[in-house]
Amino acid sequence: MPDSMPASSIDFSAIEQAAARIDGRAHVTPVLRSRSIDTLVGAELWFKCENLQRVGAFKFRGACNAVWSLAESLARNGVVTHSSGNHGAALALAARTRDIPAHVVVPEGAVRSKVEAIEAYGAIVHRCAPSIIAREQAAESVRQTTGASLVHPYTDPAVIAGQGTVAREFLAETGPLDVLIAPVGGGGLICGTAIASAAISPGTRVLAAEPSGAADTWQSLRNGARVGPFVPATICDGLRTLVGEINFAILSAQGVEVLTVDDAETIAAMRLIWQRLKLVVEPSAAIVLAAILKHRERFAELRIGLILSGGNVDLDALPWLEPAR
Amino acid sequence: MPDSMPASSIDFSAIEQAAARIDGRAHVTPVLRSRSIDTLVGAELWFKCENLQRVGAFKFRGACNAVWSLAESLARNGVVTHSSGNHGAALALAARTRDIPAHVVVPEGAVRSKVEAIEAYGAIVHRCAPSIIAREQAAESVRQTTGASLVHPYTDPAVIAGQGTVAREFLAETGPLDVLIAPVGGGGLICGTAIASAAISPGTRVLAAEPSGAADTWQSLRNGARVGPFVPATICDGLRTLVGEINFAILSAQGVEVLTVDDAETIAAMRLIWQRLKLVVEPSAAIVLAAILKHRERFAELRIGLILSGGNVDLDALPWLEPAR
Repeated sequence: MPDSMPASSIDFSAIEQAAARIDGRAHVTPVLRSRSIDTLVGAELWFKCENLQRVGAFKFRGACNAVWSLAESLARNGVVTHSSGNHGAALALAARTRDIPAHVVVPEGAVRSKVEAIEAYGAIVHRCAPSIIAREQAAESVRQTTGASLVHPYTDPAVIAGQGTVAREFLAETGPLDVLIAPVGGGGLICGTAIASAAISPGTRVLAAEPSGAADTWQSLRNGARVGPFVPATICDGLRTLVGEINFAILSAQGVEVLTVDDAETIAAMRLIWQRLKLVVEPSAAIVLAAILKHRERFAELRIGLILSGGNVDLDALPWLEPAR
Repeated sequence: MPDSMPASSIDFSAIEQAAARIDGRAHVTPVLRSRSIDTLVGAELWFKCENLQRVGAFKFRGACNAVWSLAESLARNGVVTHSSGNHGAALALAARTRDIPAHVVVPEGAVRSKVEAIEAYGAIVHRCAPSIIAREQAAESVRQTTGASLVHPYTDPAVIAGQGTVAREFLAETGPLDVLIAPVGGGGLICGTAIASAAISPGTRVLAAEPSGAADTWQSLRNGARVGPFVPATICDGLRTLVGEINFAILSAQGVEVLTVDDAETIAAMRLIWQRLKLVVEPSAAIVLAAILKHRERFAELRIGLILSGGNVDLDALPWLEPAR
């Protein structure tokens, strides 16, 4: 990590500073609504379209904040990270906005379109085995060789603060919400969301949506202690990660509740978003609507903010889009 | 038609009146950009997202203007139209905003998701054979039985004026453009676009994109006379129609140029829009980007406005979205 800022230092002022730092570099994303989805759910839904963010995901905010937080002397050696996808692309582009090198360690088996995006943004790609230990070792080795600063995808405080700008921007547009929901993988987005929401709109209940096949955060909060590594089984490729230690601490402190969702429910919600909102979202984003649909009676008539985290779907898996048909 | 306003009466003031009439009923749709598509094309592209319009297409504007243009005594008998899809859904919803009945004649073979939308918006659906003559006869028969006013999908002057509000809104946001391009099927959208653009930004060149497999407008303008009925062969289900007589007259008078595009080019462009803009658009919408890509050298470095007309794709044709996979 570029430095060892303690978890407690990620307060709302860090998010305000991040917002100023990424201003003009990241997009202010639109908030959309759908009357037909509102009718279906029986509530008032507001969708924050981070799929329309640069690199197609909220990840650009955190990466951009981290890159522009570095002192000049450190920055010139570049940045390094390990990422199965969106964070890698985000860091690659963020580094390009500062004209410094980016190294991205990518595990074998990552979604092809995401790896292509990382390369297209000019990063140097390093392959490794698909385990968290192999990723961390490879990134550490690059760091030692190049002097690049590690920008961890979800435990880096600058990344968490950057992700917190989503909720800050969202609440500024919608005003107070009853509920705010974001997906949880490693926990960068949901932690930033919880911190921002607590500061701006303390009455808003912050929820996390997590795949049943990767429900370590749900289990960890239930146990009161972070569970160990596990083998994920979910199509939500952005949410297969074990929640970070700092992230778990923040979620516990903020009292964030996790709702688990089966993949079939996520796919049905994704279909609904494509069909009604006309937005391309990835499964890891659609999971938030799936969680609300699953617990419809609980959310009846509430004002709910949903963070659509990204839209990087591998279109090669859509045969219908082939000219040959 | 509700009345026989001559073609010459569709001037910019009719579009201004339409804008006032649909204000608060139709959405002001976002304008999006993509740096990566700009780089690919070598020009500055602005996308007007009518796929995010109510019913998922610009058609709601024209239908809404037509419905709210009717005198109360006529309106109470309702409206009738024939439509393979988006206009039918648009008229159904527009009628519901005035609480009057809507009858929609739908040809056999229309896209299922579009017919379902028409029914979901509360219209009475009447089936007919898939020919323009069968459609018109069926609509006429409904009109005589019910006293409903016919709202033709693209020749009705109130519909054309309503569609012209897209370009009015678009140019207000972008300022002067070098080029403005919209698809042409029956010609409602492109005529409204040409009239609005000529009034607001006379230096803007207005272009139409048409499928090679339904290139009657291109052929008609070339011949200087409207060609007769033909059998369309294109996946662009919104653009299979013969250009209307009044529409042909307006396009001739306005000097609109048509660019023809093959379906394979349209699908490649659609894929690019889904991938880079994260927007679900239908082939009939993606054709405008395909036309620009096809003639890239001609459009180099220009400021180009593209009207993404709709996003009503039949997701049943996307096996990847099935939970079973």
